[in-house]
Amino acid sequence: MGTHSIDPAGARDVWSTATARNGLLHFIDICLRGAGQVMFQNNPLTGLLFFIGVFWGAHAAGMPAVAWGAVVGTIVGTVTAWCLNAPRENINMGLHGYNGVLVGCALPTFFAPTPLLWAYIVIGSVFSTILMMAFTHMLRTWKISAMTGPFVFTTWFLMLAAYNFANIRITGLPHPTIAIQPPASELYGLDLLQFLRACLTGISQVFLINNVATGLLFLAGLAVASLWAAVFAFFGSALAVGTALLLGAGTSSILAGLFQFSAVLTAVGLGTTFYHPNWRVIGYAVLGAIFTVIAQGALNVVLNTYGIPTLTFPFVIAAWIFLLPNLDLPPERIRDKSVSGVRGQGSNHAS
Amino acid sequence: MGTHSIDPAGARDVWSTATARNGLLHFIDICLRGAGQVMFQNNPLTGLLFFIGVFWGAHAAGMPAVAWGAVVGTIVGTVTAWCLNAPRENINMGLHGYNGVLVGCALPTFFAPTPLLWAYIVIGSVFSTILMMAFTHMLRTWKISAMTGPFVFTTWFLMLAAYNFANIRITGLPHPTIAIQPPASELYGLDLLQFLRACLTGISQVFLINNVATGLLFLAGLAVASLWAAVFAFFGSALAVGTALLLGAGTSSILAGLFQFSAVLTAVGLGTTFYHPNWRVIGYAVLGAIFTVIAQGALNVVLNTYGIPTLTFPFVIAAWIFLLPNLDLPPERIRDKSVSGVRGQGSNHAS
Amino acid sequence: MGTHSIDPAGARDVWSTATARNGLLHFIDICLRGAGQVMFQNNPLTGLLFFIGVFWGAHAAGMPAVAWGAVVGTIVGTVTAWCLNAPRENINMGLHGYNGVLVGCALPTFFAPTPLLWAYIVIGSVFSTILMMAFTHMLRTWKISAMTGPFVFTTWFLMLAAYNFANIRITGLPHPTIAIQPPASELYGLDLLQFLRACLTGISQVFLINNVATGLLFLAGLAVASLWAAVFAFFGSALAVGTALLLGAGTSSILAGLFQFSAVLTAVGLGTTFYHPNWRVIGYAVLGAIFTVIAQGALNVVLNTYGIPTLTFPFVIAAWIFLLPNLDLPPERIRDKSVSGVRGQGSNHAS
Repeated sequence: MGTHSIDPAGARDVWSTATARNGLLHFIDICLRGAGQVMFQNNPLTGLLFFIGVFWGAHAAGMPAVAWGAVVGTIVGTVTAWCLNAPRENINMGLHGYNGVLVGCALPTFFAPTPLLWAYIVIGSVFSTILMMAFTHMLRTWKISAMTGPFVFTTWFLMLAAYNFANIRITGLPHPTIAIQPPASELYGLDLLQFLRACLTGISQVFLINNVATGLLFLAGLAVASLWAAVFAFFGSALAVGTALLLGAGTSSILAGLFQFSAVLTAVGLGTTFYHPNWRVIGYAVLGAIFTVIAQGALNVVLNTYGIPTLTFPFVIAAWIFLLPNLDLPPERIRDKSVSGVRGQGSNHAS
Repeated sequence: MGTHSIDPAGARDVWSTATARNGLLHFIDICLRGAGQVMFQNNPLTGLLFFIGVFWGAHAAGMPAVAWGAVVGTIVGTVTAWCLNAPRENINMGLHGYNGVLVGCALPTFFAPTPLLWAYIVIGSVFSTILMMAFTHMLRTWKISAMTGPFVFTTWFLMLAAYNFANIRITGLPHPTIAIQPPASELYGLDLLQFLRACLTGISQVFLINNVATGLLFLAGLAVASLWAAVFAFFGSALAVGTALLLGAGTSSILAGLFQFSAVLTAVGLGTTFYHPNWRVIGYAVLGAIFTVIAQGALNVVLNTYGIPTLTFPFVIAAWIFLLPNLDLPPERIRDKSVSGVRGQGSNHAS
Repeated sequence: MGTHSIDPAGARDVWSTATARNGLLHFIDICLRGAGQVMFQNNPLTGLLFFIGVFWGAHAAGMPAVAWGAVVGTIVGTVTAWCLNAPRENINMGLHGYNGVLVGCALPTFFAPTPLLWAYIVIGSVFSTILMMAFTHMLRTWKISAMTGPFVFTTWFLMLAAYNFANIRITGLPHPTIAIQPPASELYGLDLLQFLRACLTGISQVFLINNVATGLLFLAGLAVASLWAAVFAFFGSALAVGTALLLGAGTSSILAGLFQFSAVLTAVGLGTTFYHPNWRVIGYAVLGAIFTVIAQGALNVVLNTYGIPTLTFPFVIAAWIFLLPNLDLPPERIRDKSVSGVRGQGSNHAS
C-alpha cells in the first residue's frame, strides 16, 4: 500500500540542506522530530504542527506553562542523551525527545508552576532519557520498543513523590480513592457532534490537551507524514468512544477524551508503525484498541487508589502485549525493511 | 519412579485413531486437553473429568453460567490461537485452551450473566491467547513457562475495568478494603472431617468451584493421567491447610479452599511436571507450597485494596521464583526428556 | 585513583590462613562477608564492624531480637545456598548472606518476637536465597545484579501476609493509609548538628537502625575496605538530606534517616562498586542519589496504602535503572577488571 504523504518533497529538501549546514537548525529539527515521535512520526513538520496544537490548547486552557514545559522537556531530554553518549542516529530521529516533551506537558497540568516545579521538570526530563536508555536496553531482548514507558514511569514517580513533598503544590491530581462503579446517572448518549468532538479530544489528549482544534492540528500533523497514520488515529479514537459507551464508562470522561487517547496510540502504532496496513493488521489493531480501552478502565481503578492518572500506560501495556507474540502479519513488516521513512517510538535499529 | 497411570491404554488407542480421522473429534480432544492443562495434564480423559467436576459444582452452586463460560472460553481461546498461527503442536497439546477455560469460569463467578458479559467472556478469551503468546515469547528467555499468568492478567484487567464500566454488573467481587488483621474470633480448629473437606475444596477451587465432590472428580482426573500428580495435589492441599492454620488465617476461608488452590498447583507443578518426584524434589515442592500460602496472604492484602481476588497468581509467582534458579535436582528432569507423556502448562518445546 | 584502604594487610593474611585451615572460621568469614555485602564490601572486617553497629543499635533501642535475627538470617541464608548447590565462589564472597541478614533485621523491627516469628525469620531467609538465585538468573540477561531485591521482595511478602495471619503479631508496620501531603507544620530547618545527625542515621538505617553511633561504626566498616565507599556513603546521605529538605519532606522523617538510607546505597554502588570514581561518575551518582530520594517519596505513597515500608527498594530500582543503560563512563569500569578486590552485591561473575 506504500507510503502516502502530503508533505511536499521540495520543502523537505530545502530543510534537509539547511539543517545539515546550521547547528541550531539541526537541533531544532531534532526537537521537532521528538514531538512528532510521540505519535511515531520521524518528521519535523509533524512535530511543528504538534507544538502549534499544544500551544493553542494550553493557551485556550489558560495554562501556558504546559506548552513551555513541553519545550523545556524536549530540549533537556535531547541534551541529556548527548551527554550520556546515546547512539547519535537515535538522537537524530527524535527518540530522546518524545518522552521529555510529555514530561514537560504533564507536570504543569497537575502542579502549580512554581520555580521548584521548573527544577522538577528539568530533572524529570533528565530521568526520562536515562529511563529511555534503560528500557531500550532491556526490551531489546524481545525486539520491542520502549514506547512512552519512560515518560509514564518518570512522571508517575514525580507525581507520587509529590504527596510526600510539601513544596511541590498539587493542583490537578485526582483525589486518592477506593474503586466504585459509576452511577447510571453519569451515563448518557452522544449526538453526532458530541461523538466527533469526543473523537478529536481523544486525539488531543495524547499531549494531555482537551481541545478540538488541537485534535485537528494533530491529525494534520499526522497526515503530512502519513495519511494512514491520520486515518488510524481518527478511527482508533472513534472505536474507543464506541467501546467505552457500550461498556458504560462515564460519558463526561469520554467527552474529555480520557478513554481514547491511549487507544489512538495503539491504533496508529499497531496499524501503521510496527505493521503495514492490511486486513489482518486492521483486525489486530481493532483488538488492540479494544484491549486498550479495557486497560484504561483497569488502570484508572488501580492508580486512583494512589491519586495519579494512567497517562499513556494503557497504550504502552497494550503495545507490549500485542507486539510480544511477534506475529507475522503479511504482506510485510516495516521492521524488516532496511530503509523506511517511518520509524517507531523508541525502536532502536542499532542493536 | 516411572510414570504410573490408570488410563487404560486400549481406550487411548481407539480415541487416538478416532481423533485422527474426524475433525470435530480432534477439536473436542484439543479442548479437553486444554481443561486438563490447567493442572498440567495433556490428557483428554483428565479434561473430561475436570469438565464434569466443573458442571457438577456450577450446578450445585446454582451458577450454570460458570460451566458454560468454561466451554466458551476453551473454544474461543483455542480458535484464536489457530487464527494467529500459533505453533500447531502447542495448540494440539491444549496449551491455548487452559487460560480460556479459566477466564470462562472466573467471569460468571464474579459478574451477572448478562448478554454483555458473554461478549466480555469471548473478548477475554481472545486476549488470554494473545497474552499466552506474549508471555511464552518473553519467558522463553529464562526457560520458564507462562503458567496460568495469561488467565490471571486478562481476568484482572477485565475485573478492574468493570469498576469503571456501569454496564458490567458486579455481583461477587470483594469490596475494596484497606488491610486489617483478622480478629481471633475468626480462628477455630478443624476436626478430621473438616480437614479433609478443606483439602478437597482446595483442589476444586483451582477452577473457582467450592465443592467436595468436584474436588474428588479433579483428583480422579489427575489420577488417570498420573498417580503422582494426584498424590501431590492432595498432600499439597493438606500442607497448605496446615500452614494456614498455624499462621492464623481465617478458618472459614480455609474451609472454602481459598488458601490452598494455588498451593495445589505449585505442588503438582514443582513435584511432578517440571521435576520428577524424588526426596529433594519433595522438599523443594514443600518449600514452594509454603511460599505459595504466604504469597496468597500477601496478594490478598494488595488486591483487596482494588476489590479483586488473587486468582491463581500466588501459584504463578511461586512457580516462576522456584523454577528460575534452574536447579538441577537429580535423578532426572522431565524437561530434558525428549519424549514425555507429561508436559507442563505453557511449556513451549518449539523454541 | 586506585583502591585505598586502611585494612592492615598483615592481619588479613593471618585471617586468610586461619580460615583456610578451620571450617568454622571459614563459615564465620563467609557470614561476616555477607554482612559486608549489604554495602557491597567483600570484607570480613567490614562485616564485623557492621554486626557491632547492629548489636549496638539494637541494644540501644531495646530490641535485641533485631541483632539476633541478623545473625540467624545470615546463617540460614548461607546454609540454604549450600544445600541448593549455588556456585561456591558466590557463597564464599558473602553473596548469599546479605539478603538473609537484612530479613533478620527487618522482621523483629516490625513484629513481636514470638516463637512463630523465629520460624518466619528462618523460612524468610530460606526464601531470600531462592529469590537471590532467581533474580541472579533473570537479571544476568541484562548484566545487572540482584542488589537487595531478594531481601525486599521476601520481606514484603512476609509483611503483607501478616495482615492475613492473626498469629504473627504486628507491632511496627505503618497503618495502611491513603496519600495526603504533609502539612507545613511538619517542615522545619535543621541546624548543623541536626544535619550531621541526619547524615549518620541515614547510614545506620541501611540495616533498619536509627542510631548515630551505629552510623559511625558503619562508616568505619566501609573505610577499612574502601575509603571511597565511606566518602560516597557520607556525601550520598548529605545530598539526600539536602534534596529532601528542598522538596519539603517531613523533617522528623529526615532526622530518622528515612529519606537517606537508599540514597547511601545508590551513591556507594554507582560511585565505587559498579563504576570507579571520576568526575563523570560522580555526576552520575549525584543524579542517581537524587532519583533515589524521589523514588523514596513515590514508593512511600504506594506502599503506605498496604501498610508496609519501602525497605531498600528505592535503591534497588534506582540502581537497576541507572545501570541498565550500560553506560561507558571512563577511565575504567570495575566490571571489566578480571581481578578486583571490590565486588558488587549479587554480581555473578560465574555467568
